[in-house]
Amino acid sequence: MEKPWATLGIDLHLQPAGGGVRRGLTVALRDAVRTGRLAPGTRLPSSRSLATDLGLARNTVAGAYADLVAEGWLTARQGSGTRVADRPVPPPARHPDPTPSRTGRPAYSLIPGSPDLASFPRTQWLKAARRALAAAPNDALGYGDPRGRAELRTALAGYLARARGVRTDPDRIVVSAGFAHALRLLSQVLHARGLRTLAVESYGLDVHWSLAERAGLRTRPLPFDASGTDPDGLAGERAVLLTPSHQFPMGVTLRPERRAAVVDWARRTGGLILEDDYDGEFRYDRQPVGALQGLDPERVAYTGSVSKSLAPGLRLGWLMVPEWLAEDVVRRKRTIDLGHPSVDQAVFARFLERGDYDRQLRRCQRAYRERRDALVAALAEHFPGAEVSGIAAGLHVIATLPERYGPQDRFLARVAGAGVAVRPLSDCRYRPGGDPGKAAAVRLVVGYAHLSPGRIREGVRLMAEAV
Amino acid sequence: MEKPWATLGIDLHLQPAGGGVRRGLTVALRDAVRTGRLAPGTRLPSSRSLATDLGLARNTVAGAYADLVAEGWLTARQGSGTRVADRPVPPPARHPDPTPSRTGRPAYSLIPGSPDLASFPRTQWLKAARRALAAAPNDALGYGDPRGRAELRTALAGYLARARGVRTDPDRIVVSAGFAHALRLLSQVLHARGLRTLAVESYGLDVHWSLAERAGLRTRPLPFDASGTDPDGLAGERAVLLTPSHQFPMGVTLRPERRAAVVDWARRTGGLILEDDYDGEFRYDRQPVGALQGLDPERVAYTGSVSKSLAPGLRLGWLMVPEWLAEDVVRRKRTIDLGHPSVDQAVFARFLERGDYDRQLRRCQRAYRERRDALVAALAEHFPGAEVSGIAAGLHVIATLPERYGPQDRFLARVAGAGVAVRPLSDCRYRPGGDPGKAAAVRLVVGYAHLSPGRIREGVRLMAEAV
Repeated sequence: MEKPWATLGIDLHLQPAGGGVRRGLTVALRDAVRTGRLAPGTRLPSSRSLATDLGLARNTVAGAYADLVAEGWLTARQGSGTRVADRPVPPPARHPDPTPSRTGRPAYSLIPGSPDLASFPRTQWLKAARRALAAAPNDALGYGDPRGRAELRTALAGYLARARGVRTDPDRIVVSAGFAHALRLLSQVLHARGLRTLAVESYGLDVHWSLAERAGLRTRPLPFDASGTDPDGLAGERAVLLTPSHQFPMGVTLRPERRAAVVDWARRTGGLILEDDYDGEFRYDRQPVGALQGLDPERVAYTGSVSKSLAPGLRLGWLMVPEWLAEDVVRRKRTIDLGHPSVDQAVFARFLERGDYDRQLRRCQRAYRERRDALVAALAEHFPGAEVSGIAAGLHVIATLPERYGPQDRFLARVAGAGVAVRPLSDCRYRPGGDPGKAAAVRLVVGYAHLSPGRIREGVRLMAEAV
Repeated sequence: MEKPWATLGIDLHLQPAGGGVRRGLTVALRDAVRTGRLAPGTRLPSSRSLATDLGLARNTVAGAYADLVAEGWLTARQGSGTRVADRPVPPPARHPDPTPSRTGRPAYSLIPGSPDLASFPRTQWLKAARRALAAAPNDALGYGDPRGRAELRTALAGYLARARGVRTDPDRIVVSAGFAHALRLLSQVLHARGLRTLAVESYGLDVHWSLAERAGLRTRPLPFDASGTDPDGLAGERAVLLTPSHQFPMGVTLRPERRAAVVDWARRTGGLILEDDYDGEFRYDRQPVGALQGLDPERVAYTGSVSKSLAPGLRLGWLMVPEWLAEDVVRRKRTIDLGHPSVDQAVFARFLERGDYDRQLRRCQRAYRERRDALVAALAEHFPGAEVSGIAAGLHVIATLPERYGPQDRFLARVAGAGVAVRPLSDCRYRPGGDPGKAAAVRLVVGYAHLSPGRIREGVRLMAEAV
């Protein structure tokens, strides 16, 4: 005997946008089976009877039944009518949030890594998008060159030659999703060519070292002194990851004789330098130092991105590779992701061509210089005797506090308690731990680009009050 | 003795947009060293003398010299003045184009895989971009949740539940760069959990099988018959890649009893089904078949993308994973690319929320149905006796031509000579080669969505004339 529609316990919401009455009925029935309101084995009304009950055409109901039979929710057998399929529906799964909790987010974060997202040029970006979408040929929306759109590679080549002294050729540029993506791609290619060890700087980001290691490369730290990374440590190595224009996080610019020595090492041994030019555009007191790549494009793989100059969320960067690596890199790029989103590329190409990128960099340069000055002044005022280094460039400084502020663990705990997030320099050492002889000293990597001068002063003041 | 400026052979172009006079001088000198116009060891004029010569301030010239010394192009030694660094500059590298030549591109391509790029809704997309950029908080431009933007995952969950019968939870959606990206991510995660073999369909895309293999998985094809892939072949397997709603390329919809059998296999054995729902939205003669995932979200990892519905160039897709896989997938996603571009995500979320996606699908559905009908009619007219199958859904059909058109190699050569690109079905077999008993028959996978009805008719006519 068939139950009347109402007792089936089905909520029938017809969604006009969702494909009309038949779609609405299908969704409602499917939900009822899913949630267990229609138990396995339940016999449904005949399509004729349900249609009459609901005031629908019989074909509509028969169609919905057929769809759900096709999907496996219902079964239809000669003589036994339409029934809910005899397969237990699993209980709704629990859904823990795999990201860390946001509660307890600090009031002030002096953690480096982000530019000022509030100064992202939304209006100019949108204008570039309008022009790019109006002008792009249809095939710009299809699967494209794995290196990226030709107009973006051409615009990048011009910009990088002019602003960073990079020796460029649009054919050798690969558009990437940022430095991590480029490092991963290069590490895989180099591993496939037999590389087993990547020399790295003694200071840097653990996430980068891990990336190379996941591609099968051991990492080995190079000696580091006041002049930066010492190229003498490169003997026996075949590849090195460097931040020559502005060492991260120490802020040192690799000295001319060391730049020359690194390139000489690469030429002599056939080695490769991976140049991470992560914030080379930002130099406050003089002109930016040109990229190392310009000294010998066949021995340097050069990477940059918009993560510090525009916004990390764009996930847009570039990689310029020596000729002998180009084919391998492009082939692997093609197999791993079929290229970077093409509309974004067309927009950024316009943005570059129209001079918007230069204007944005100049605007940020002025703002960040002011912020840096505010930070340096606030540290001098609230932490008398602090040494501040790496101030010439970039989006962060190194602050070494007098010993009386130590030990570091206690300092960090108190500052965190006051709602200020800071990063100790020890987090950025290849071998975790303080510097020899400065075990007790508190050394911090302090980012300032993302905060207004007022918030910088307030954050530093709060930090001083807490300790 | 210092040479006068003019004889140094330097082209000094001052670029107003490039940072002023000092920048222009630096660029010109660097180029002169690079190109060899200033030979290694050449002594440069003193800064005072060159400044007088050029009518510049002495500091400007001294600054440019200092920059180039810092970059390693010049050397400055007490008593010996400023000289071009004594390191040979390598000759300019040759730059072969690593992509295949575009010459000889066919006049008509009936290769499947692309939607109609001309119907990409540029105006609506730009409107969505304007709204998204106006509304997005600043932190939308920063490093975000590796799963993707919450508003997009929420909008996708609603859409997929409604349109595809997917059992959704925004927390379990991961925004991807399309199916290949999702398959690679899943293959790596499954390999890390001990999987060594992935069962696949006997027909599909070699590029997908290769992707899984590069992640360390062997692939093993399942038996295939007129009802599609036979789940009996799953005994002993732990994971299977399927296109259940619309087998690629054969066009079969997996029958209800086989859908049930696959899910039962997965439940019984703890196996995983990777559902590639690549064109599930497009079904012409009845409502789309819902996703297999809805039958058991804990045993199915579901993937889809905008590559067939909007444009492959957006590189935007989604992956919905069972709870027991979610943490591994999110962790690996975080380490490989730090998430998908966030502005694109915000735009697509708006596009979905505003109903633009539904409207676009309906528009395409009408257009593609007309194109399919044109193709079927043209094949009937120009290739009498051809069997056309897989016409109920998707963006392509299978055409089996009468034996008199064979053998296939000769057919393909003649058609290519006439400027028509077609894909033989044998390209999509796991084991290359024709079907047993049909060795001589020509079987083609013919895409139609990207061509107007007129061009479809013309392409088929040309093909018929050629053979």
